[in-house]
Amino acid sequence: MAESVLYDAAALRRYAERFLIHFEVPADDARVMGDILVTADERGIDSHGVTRLYTYYGRRLERKTTDPASPTRVVKETPTTLLLDGGNGLGPVVAHRAMTRCLEKAKEMGLALVSVRNSNHFGIAGYYAMMALPHGMIGVSLTNSQPFVAPTYSRAGILGTNPIAVAVPAGNERPFVLDMATSIVSLGKIQVHSKAKEAIPLGWGIAKSGEQTESPDAVLDKGALQPLGGPDYLRGYKGYGLALLVDILSGVLSGAATGPHVGRPTDDGIANVGHFFLALRVDAIRDLGLFQDGMDGLIREMKDAAKVPGQDRVYIHGEKEFERAKRSAAEGVPVLKAAVEQLTAVGADIGVPFDLDPVARRAK
Amino acid sequence: MAESVLYDAAALRRYAERFLIHFEVPADDARVMGDILVTADERGIDSHGVTRLYTYYGRRLERKTTDPASPTRVVKETPTTLLLDGGNGLGPVVAHRAMTRCLEKAKEMGLALVSVRNSNHFGIAGYYAMMALPHGMIGVSLTNSQPFVAPTYSRAGILGTNPIAVAVPAGNERPFVLDMATSIVSLGKIQVHSKAKEAIPLGWGIAKSGEQTESPDAVLDKGALQPLGGPDYLRGYKGYGLALLVDILSGVLSGAATGPHVGRPTDDGIANVGHFFLALRVDAIRDLGLFQDGMDGLIREMKDAAKVPGQDRVYIHGEKEFERAKRSAAEGVPVLKAAVEQLTAVGADIGVPFDLDPVARRAK
Repeated sequence: MAESVLYDAAALRRYAERFLIHFEVPADDARVMGDILVTADERGIDSHGVTRLYTYYGRRLERKTTDPASPTRVVKETPTTLLLDGGNGLGPVVAHRAMTRCLEKAKEMGLALVSVRNSNHFGIAGYYAMMALPHGMIGVSLTNSQPFVAPTYSRAGILGTNPIAVAVPAGNERPFVLDMATSIVSLGKIQVHSKAKEAIPLGWGIAKSGEQTESPDAVLDKGALQPLGGPDYLRGYKGYGLALLVDILSGVLSGAATGPHVGRPTDDGIANVGHFFLALRVDAIRDLGLFQDGMDGLIREMKDAAKVPGQDRVYIHGEKEFERAKRSAAEGVPVLKAAVEQLTAVGADIGVPFDLDPVARRAK
Repeated sequence: MAESVLYDAAALRRYAERFLIHFEVPADDARVMGDILVTADERGIDSHGVTRLYTYYGRRLERKTTDPASPTRVVKETPTTLLLDGGNGLGPVVAHRAMTRCLEKAKEMGLALVSVRNSNHFGIAGYYAMMALPHGMIGVSLTNSQPFVAPTYSRAGILGTNPIAVAVPAGNERPFVLDMATSIVSLGKIQVHSKAKEAIPLGWGIAKSGEQTESPDAVLDKGALQPLGGPDYLRGYKGYGLALLVDILSGVLSGAATGPHVGRPTDDGIANVGHFFLALRVDAIRDLGLFQDGMDGLIREMKDAAKVPGQDRVYIHGEKEFERAKRSAAEGVPVLKAAVEQLTAVGADIGVPFDLDPVARRAK
C-alpha cells in the first residue's frame, strides 16, 4: 500500500493554480485545470490527479511543447455540432471549454456534440461527463490516448486505453457515472505490480511475443495491454471494438491522430489527441422528474439484488468515487508520497515551492 | 455443429412476409421485418434470424399479445429528438420506423436521437445502426432486453444482454459495425452447450448460488450470465456498467420497462421494451471524404498489425459478418435445421406452408 499525505482540497487547488500560472497559463484556465486534477485525487483516481501536474503537463509547458495559452479555434459549427482545434493547448483546459460549449448548445437544441482535435491528455474523462449533471443533462466524454492496447489476435499495442465516460442524473440516489478505460487495466496498474514484484492475473497483458503473461515486466518490455474481455473465449474482441470505436469518434471524426500515432504526454512531440463530447437535455425526451424517479428505481433494484457469497453490496458506477470524495472532504485529499516528493523537488526548482501543510498522513 | 439448410435469400424474405401477413401485419411492415430477419441469417447471426419468426413474433401475434398493426405514436418531438410509443407493435417494425425518423431528423439537423418505449424484441441491433451508412452517417442502436445478466457481486440475472450497435462508414474498406451484447455470451450460447453436454468456460455464467460454474445446466437453472469482463479481477463491473447504461438509455430515458421488468418475447405479457437510436451526419463535423480516408487508414493499421502466434488475421468489427453475407449471397442463406422443422410444422398448421426448395444442405 502506497503511503499518501492528506492535504486541504482548497490549498491543493491553489497550489496547482500557482504552478500552472508560473508556466504562463492564464489564471482562469489554471483555476479550471487545478479543479480537474484535484477532483481526480478527491475521487480516488490518483493516476490522473496532481501526480501528473509535472509529468504530463508541467514538463511539456517547461519545454514549450504545449501552448499554455492556446485560443481553441472553431473549425466548423452548426446549431447541434462543433469541431474545435485545441491548438496544442492543455488537454483539461481544452476539454473543459469544449464541454462548456456542448452544454450551451444542448441547452438550446436538446442535443449537441463537440468534436476536438489537436489537444493533449485531458485527465479524468468523467469530469467532463459530470459537467452535464447540474443541468439535468446526460453527458458523454471520450478521448483517445497514447497506444498500449493490442487488438484481438495482434501483439502490437496500437490502441489507447481510450476511456468511455457517461454521467446520468438521478433523483435521491447519486448519479450514475461510468468512467472506464476500454482496456482491462491501465498501464499504471501493471507498473504498480512491477514495482511490488507481484505477478499480474492472466488476461491483463501479453508479452512482446504475443503470449499471455503473468509477468508485469514482460508486458512493460514492448508487450501490450489486453482490451476489456481479455482472451478470445471471454470475448476480448468486444473490448477491442469499444477501444476502436472511441478512437474513431475521438480521432477520425475530429481529424486528430489515431491508433499508434497519438502522442504520449511524457514525450515532447505534438500529441494531437482527439476528444468527443455529447450532451442530451433529458427533458427534450421526457419530464426530468419522472426520469429521475426511474433512475432511482433502477438503482435501488440493482443495490437490493441478491448478493454472491462473500459480498454484501452491489455498487452503482461512480458510487465508490462519490464516497471517496466525501471522505476526502472530511479528512483531506490523499496525494501519493512519491508525487509529494516530486512536486517538492520540482517546485523548489522552478520557484513555486510545494509548501502546503499536510492535514495528516495515512497508509493508502 | 448444427446442420443448416440453404435457401434463396429472396424466397426466404417472401416467406417471412407471407407468414407475417397471415397474422394481419400490413404488407409494407411485413416486407421490412422479413428483410431484418433474413439479413440476420445472411450475416450469420442465426439466433436473431427466421429461427425467431414464430418463437419471438408469430406466437405472440397468434395469441394477440403483440399488435400486428400498431401505429407508433409520437409522444414528444423537438427538432433534434423524438420520443415514440411503439404501441406494443412488432419490435423490428417499430425500430425501423424509429431509425428512419432519426435519419430524417439527422439529415436536417446534423444530429438526432430517437427514444422508444412500449416496443418488443427488435432482432439484430446492428441492422438499425447500419441504416445510417448509405447516408454518410454514423448510426447507434441500443435496446434493453429480458433479464439474464447479474450485476457484479449479485447472483440475480436482472439485466438484459442489452446490446450496443454502432455503424461507421469507411471508404474503400468495409464499414465498422460493432454489434455486441454487453454480456460475455448470450443465453443461446449456454443452451447450445447444454444440449451438446459440453462444459462452458469459467467466467461465462454463475449458478443460482452465485458461484462461478462450468456447468451450462447450472446457469440455466436460475443462474445468470456474467457481464463482459467476467470476474471482478478482469473488470466485469465495466461490462455491468455498459449493460446498465444501455438499460438507462433505452428504458429509463423512454419510460419503458427496465431491469427485471422487461418482458420476454416468449411470454405473453406486455414486454414494454425500450430502444435508443442516434444518428450523426459526418459532414456536420468534417468532410465525409476525409473522414472515410481516416477510417481506411485506421482500419488498415489494425489489419496490418503484428499477429500473436497462431493467428494470421486481425478483424475489424462487422468484417466476418460482411464476408458471411457475401457467402450467403453466393451459396444461399443458411437456416438451422431445427428452425426449418419448426417453420414447416407451424407453417402447415396456420396454412402458410414453408414450401421453399432448399438450395443445398451443409453442416454449419
